[in-house]
Amino acid sequence: MQLKIALLGGDGIGPEVLAQSVKCLKAIEETFNHRFELVEAPFGAIAISGSGRPLPDETLELCRKSDAILFGSIGSLEYDNNPEAKVRPEQGLLRLRKELELFASIRPIKMFPAFLGNSPLKRNIVENTDLVIFRELTGGIYFGEKTLSEDGTTASDLCSYSEGEISRITHLAFKAAKKRRKKLTLVDKANVLESSRLWRKTVTEIAKSYPDVEFECLFIDNAAVQMMLNPRQFDVVLTDNMFGDILSDQGSVILGSVGLLPSASVGAENAMFEPFHGSYPQAKGKNIANPVASILSTAMLLQHFNLNEEANAIVAAVHKSFVKKVVTTDVLGSSKYGTDYVGDFISENI
Amino acid sequence: MQLKIALLGGDGIGPEVLAQSVKCLKAIEETFNHRFELVEAPFGAIAISGSGRPLPDETLELCRKSDAILFGSIGSLEYDNNPEAKVRPEQGLLRLRKELELFASIRPIKMFPAFLGNSPLKRNIVENTDLVIFRELTGGIYFGEKTLSEDGTTASDLCSYSEGEISRITHLAFKAAKKRRKKLTLVDKANVLESSRLWRKTVTEIAKSYPDVEFECLFIDNAAVQMMLNPRQFDVVLTDNMFGDILSDQGSVILGSVGLLPSASVGAENAMFEPFHGSYPQAKGKNIANPVASILSTAMLLQHFNLNEEANAIVAAVHKSFVKKVVTTDVLGSSKYGTDYVGDFISENI
Ligand SMILES: CC(C)[C@H](C(=O)O)[C@@H](O)C(=O)O
Ligand SMILES: CC(C)[C@H](C(=O)O)[C@@H](O)C(=O)O
Repeated sequence: MQLKIALLGGDGIGPEVLAQSVKCLKAIEETFNHRFELVEAPFGAIAISGSGRPLPDETLELCRKSDAILFGSIGSLEYDNNPEAKVRPEQGLLRLRKELELFASIRPIKMFPAFLGNSPLKRNIVENTDLVIFRELTGGIYFGEKTLSEDGTTASDLCSYSEGEISRITHLAFKAAKKRRKKLTLVDKANVLESSRLWRKTVTEIAKSYPDVEFECLFIDNAAVQMMLNPRQFDVVLTDNMFGDILSDQGSVILGSVGLLPSASVGAENAMFEPFHGSYPQAKGKNIANPVASILSTAMLLQHFNLNEEANAIVAAVHKSFVKKVVTTDVLGSSKYGTDYVGDFISENI
Repeated sequence: MQLKIALLGGDGIGPEVLAQSVKCLKAIEETFNHRFELVEAPFGAIAISGSGRPLPDETLELCRKSDAILFGSIGSLEYDNNPEAKVRPEQGLLRLRKELELFASIRPIKMFPAFLGNSPLKRNIVENTDLVIFRELTGGIYFGEKTLSEDGTTASDLCSYSEGEISRITHLAFKAAKKRRKKLTLVDKANVLESSRLWRKTVTEIAKSYPDVEFECLFIDNAAVQMMLNPRQFDVVLTDNMFGDILSDQGSVILGSVGLLPSASVGAENAMFEPFHGSYPQAKGKNIANPVASILSTAMLLQHFNLNEEANAIVAAVHKSFVKKVVTTDVLGSSKYGTDYVGDFISENI
């Protein structure tokens, strides 16, 4: 197969972890005789320094024309600590999601047996966790109108949803549930928010056309508790943009490190693959970042094109690194392997 | 001391747990020779059945005229499952908070040694946790304009904050930090939300007048992770209404049961005391609800009036119930005591 893949390293540890994914893609190319055309492009804070914009037009064009995008991470302390900055790295990511209509972020959280000891949660709670969060990605409070009063003393963000925005991701999520353990949990705050009530009404209606899937609703505050007390109760979790951001990062606690979890952001035409984790600027250039989330995102990319054997080869190599304890310091405490070393180990074991 | 206390049992398990607090108040009255005038009033779903309104005028009036309010919980499945209901129990709670300007919800999360084994998190993580969340309670997306398009296909909620709303709770939180371990963490989503940027700007400015308090900022997604990986890093956590709702319930995971945590909602003129937990309608009338959150909220009430010895007497009796394992089934797994029994035990040990 021939694939053109855009590589957006972004900020902080993004480029470092992406470089390990590239090693894996090259190993897959060789082993399975594919042809991946990999094209890098500037994105995020680094792009602001270059062109004044976090998502330069050429980067967007490249993404549109590519079969898939591999993305590292975005965000920089310089902007985080300056609430008055007008241009921000994250705007680039939000615009990219919106322009390509990547409306569904799919975030699987699956416990690996080798990691049971790494979780801050007790073994009997996290054992066999296997859930996937469907987070709406191009609507809600992330994209609603923002205002700042002229004197700078009042600010607002609008959280708005339409039935159409809700139903397209809902169908994706129910279809996924049908192929899994046949349970879907909607997470909202319908006891307070009008937008949540539209979610609840729309999803409840759609649920009727998937009668073999068990359907339940939870308020976000309760869901945040249940995710830690009993994650095995979840199969497919469906939620909006803001709640999905919080709940999926929180879910990473189950594995004990946010550095292990991959995601796919899909739309009708395009798809982007990226780690759960952020840009972790404090770790930049130190060769300590965990490349596994990025590498597993690469496996999701291959799966997206039905290259299942190839995806499995990556997952198997990652498992091997776990079993052999070739992992970065964020996991299993004592190990001291660097980003590069772990990337080499995994790619060489493909 | 003479105090007039409004009792709002509310829905679900609210009245049952509140009844145990009343036993404790009576024990305090006797032991310390105070005079508490306790007046019950309808509130929530039950009030809707009676008067069509979740917060009847007489209930609001009573609350205004009382020295303090003890509240149980609110919410009912009948409304949760009907996203189209126009009148909802929660509106009563939101209106009460707004009318009395209870702008700060103070939610302490403190590990009791007797509970170390009850946490789903490993002992070394939760040991000595002692933090307090200051959640803004009368602004943000809970209270912004809500819209539903005429055809019912688009819905929105506005999240709006003013500098004044932010600064009054910020000063409270910094003052609390000064008396504690001198660290304050602001939780926001300033990389995406305009309202969060106003929080970050305002709080950063105010932080300068508390130079002895260490100040840091975290994004909500990261904070949700940190709260589980390393809760001891937190002393005072300051955040907005929506994030505070999620983060505080999630924080209850540290103790292993949402049934243990009390809160105070304070304003310039009034104060209300209530458990973290919701109305848990599934448990209503079964005598299984944990009364400790409500009883510890009563201790916070007494503290609010500087009745510290009295508050300590309640806390000591609760500790005794933990040590003797006189607890409800949600904690320590094996015990089988009912709500009533636990309430009797604690009040008799005051
Ligand atoms: C970087 C940030 C804008 C982003 C988000 O909040 O969506 C990130 O946290 C994520 O979860 O992908
Ligand atoms: C019942 C509900 C409206 C309420 C809230 O979200 O504020 C509750 O969850 C709380 O935390 O006090």
